Amino acid sequence: MSATLLLGPGPSNCPASVLDALSKDLVGHLDPRFINTMEACKEKLRKILHTKNAVTFPISGTGSAGMEAVLVNILEPGDTIVVGVNGVFGMRIANLAERYGATAIRVEEDWGKPMPYAALEAAVTEHKPKILAVVSGETSTGVYQNMDGLGDLAHNNGALLLADCVTSLAGMPVLLDEWGVDLMYSGTQKCLNCPPGLSPVSFSQRALDVFQNRKSLVPSFYLDLGEILKYIGDGLAKRAYHHTAPVSMVTALDAALDIVLEEGLEARWARHKDAQNYLFEKLAPLNIHPFVEEADRLWPLSTVTIPDGVDEAAVRTALLNDDNIELGGGLGPLAGKVWRIGLMGVNADRAVIDRFVDCLSAKL
Amino acid sequence: MSATLLLGPGPSNCPASVLDALSKDLVGHLDPRFINTMEACKEKLRKILHTKNAVTFPISGTGSAGMEAVLVNILEPGDTIVVGVNGVFGMRIANLAERYGATAIRVEEDWGKPMPYAALEAAVTEHKPKILAVVSGETSTGVYQNMDGLGDLAHNNGALLLADCVTSLAGMPVLLDEWGVDLMYSGTQKCLNCPPGLSPVSFSQRALDVFQNRKSLVPSFYLDLGEILKYIGDGLAKRAYHHTAPVSMVTALDAALDIVLEEGLEARWARHKDAQNYLFEKLAPLNIHPFVEEADRLWPLSTVTIPDGVDEAAVRTALLNDDNIELGGGLGPLAGKVWRIGLMGVNADRAVIDRFVDCLSAKL
Repeated sequence: MSATLLLGPGPSNCPASVLDALSKDLVGHLDPRFINTMEACKEKLRKILHTKNAVTFPISGTGSAGMEAVLVNILEPGDTIVVGVNGVFGMRIANLAERYGATAIRVEEDWGKPMPYAALEAAVTEHKPKILAVVSGETSTGVYQNMDGLGDLAHNNGALLLADCVTSLAGMPVLLDEWGVDLMYSGTQKCLNCPPGLSPVSFSQRALDVFQNRKSLVPSFYLDLGEILKYIGDGLAKRAYHHTAPVSMVTALDAALDIVLEEGLEARWARHKDAQNYLFEKLAPLNIHPFVEEADRLWPLSTVTIPDGVDEAAVRTALLNDDNIELGGGLGPLAGKVWRIGLMGVNADRAVIDRFVDCLSAKL
Repeated sequence: MSATLLLGPGPSNCPASVLDALSKDLVGHLDPRFINTMEACKEKLRKILHTKNAVTFPISGTGSAGMEAVLVNILEPGDTIVVGVNGVFGMRIANLAERYGATAIRVEEDWGKPMPYAALEAAVTEHKPKILAVVSGETSTGVYQNMDGLGDLAHNNGALLLADCVTSLAGMPVLLDEWGVDLMYSGTQKCLNCPPGLSPVSFSQRALDVFQNRKSLVPSFYLDLGEILKYIGDGLAKRAYHHTAPVSMVTALDAALDIVLEEGLEARWARHKDAQNYLFEKLAPLNIHPFVEEADRLWPLSTVTIPDGVDEAAVRTALLNDDNIELGGGLGPLAGKVWRIGLMGVNADRAVIDRFVDCLSAKL
């Protein structure tokens, strides 16, 4: 049976070389060969994130664990965070912060629009938070956040800048150092075309300084950055056992990163942009239109309006059952109102889009 | 190149059917086919845990995430936990509890010995804790805890009983309901012969009642049991997105559980016991002896003393480099004093032991 075509918000399809790496015979998690693979992943992640951050590595959990990792290591009870909330993941960042005893200032925007700079500026200058958090690629709405000026805004007000790059990474520009991002998390199951299970994270030196000056214990052992760095921070130097790294997943990630770097980031970004444009061109005759303004679109994940009178859930079920194609539904206030179409990594391809649109149009 | 023979404390070697399942083309994490796989895993885990607990499933992280999950959902600031500490993992349980603002009463015992019932009884009756925690299989020392009476002791004093079953599961008896265990976590990379990356957990109804009566937010979103159960609790019923489950890992776990159930648990336990006995028989002529008394031994993981004058780290390095065999060193106070030899799942085999002992003896 042929593979399911995964055109939802993730997981995406994995190339054969990634699945081959995943199923290689295991080596131990303290074996120098595994440590070298982990070191290679760290270096390749720095390249695709455009960062010099030494502390850049995959967390042993999915993207949500990465979100938790960057927040739980920085926030302490009584701290304040300003969060741009224009979708599920901004909401979630605020929710997590409150679980650690921090105050979350939610700057709200309509779902489907990016956060306006002025609203973030007003909140940051008023509240002087420890973190300013935005979602670079909002997986729930298909919006890509313009990061211009946010690094300076945060740093000039004593804050760290956090960016959720789960769906943007390796599908459109993610420029950590240029943007001034101090805290970043992503996922492997989107544009990296690796199975879900790891979350690349990155901490700037500024973020590490804040971490070092914590007054309270990190309320997690699994995600405690200090413990993790004793385990995987120093390459082949003496390592203290922390947990058993998911060696197969890290080996697969290493193979997936090779594919990204071989293509080159600029070419990969352009391919994702072209695929989205082509998708919209093909969908227009079906009266299916982009939900997000052109300048704000997240190339790897397109949200589209559903034509009147269409039972959107029935269409998704029929596509899966008849054609083995997965499509994503809307979340929260967008449930029933949009489809989410992921064209991520290998699936950012005109032939894939042709096949998908043919099948979709037969259902309408 | 042939596979590394993984005879440390984990990961262990994975059979071909597990690696094949791991590398299958992915389906979506909300796809009914994946939900069915998850439901199958839950049912098979109940069988190998000897429990009727409805809430039995794999956490999307390694064994340490499972430890965190069972503690963080139950403990609140001001609570008390009594922990049997006779190795690394008892220490770790106490450490985690303190991170959530609980008071940890550590009942200490020499490393290499099981926790005496009387000492746990004294602490539980004095402190009336919310949780009594013991390590059923101490991966750092090779001790298997006698669980007799601990369920009654906990329940008669208003406590939940927690058991770490990371290394015991599927290698020797783990009888949750008979023991009265309310909170359990394990790992996939030991006797289940699946790669690291998931942690099977189980919560009894008594534990769920305590969870439902929490006064404070769980200080984790990723591990919040309420959120997880909305996502994977009800089979094919409507599911709320929480995170993207590691579909490849869950598919591999399902295949690994099939192998365990096909062999049968009693046969599998007996095989692990036989393997350990055979190992000690073969090692005695090399002046290498068991570290733990016979009645207290964890069959899947043997700790052995190192002969005088042997550079234990050099031997491990030579075994890895020359023979592609991984062996475990000691942790904490046992560093440099013992080797840890895992004969887990497929490696609980006399031919494997023969090969290993031949290679080891050549290094001494």
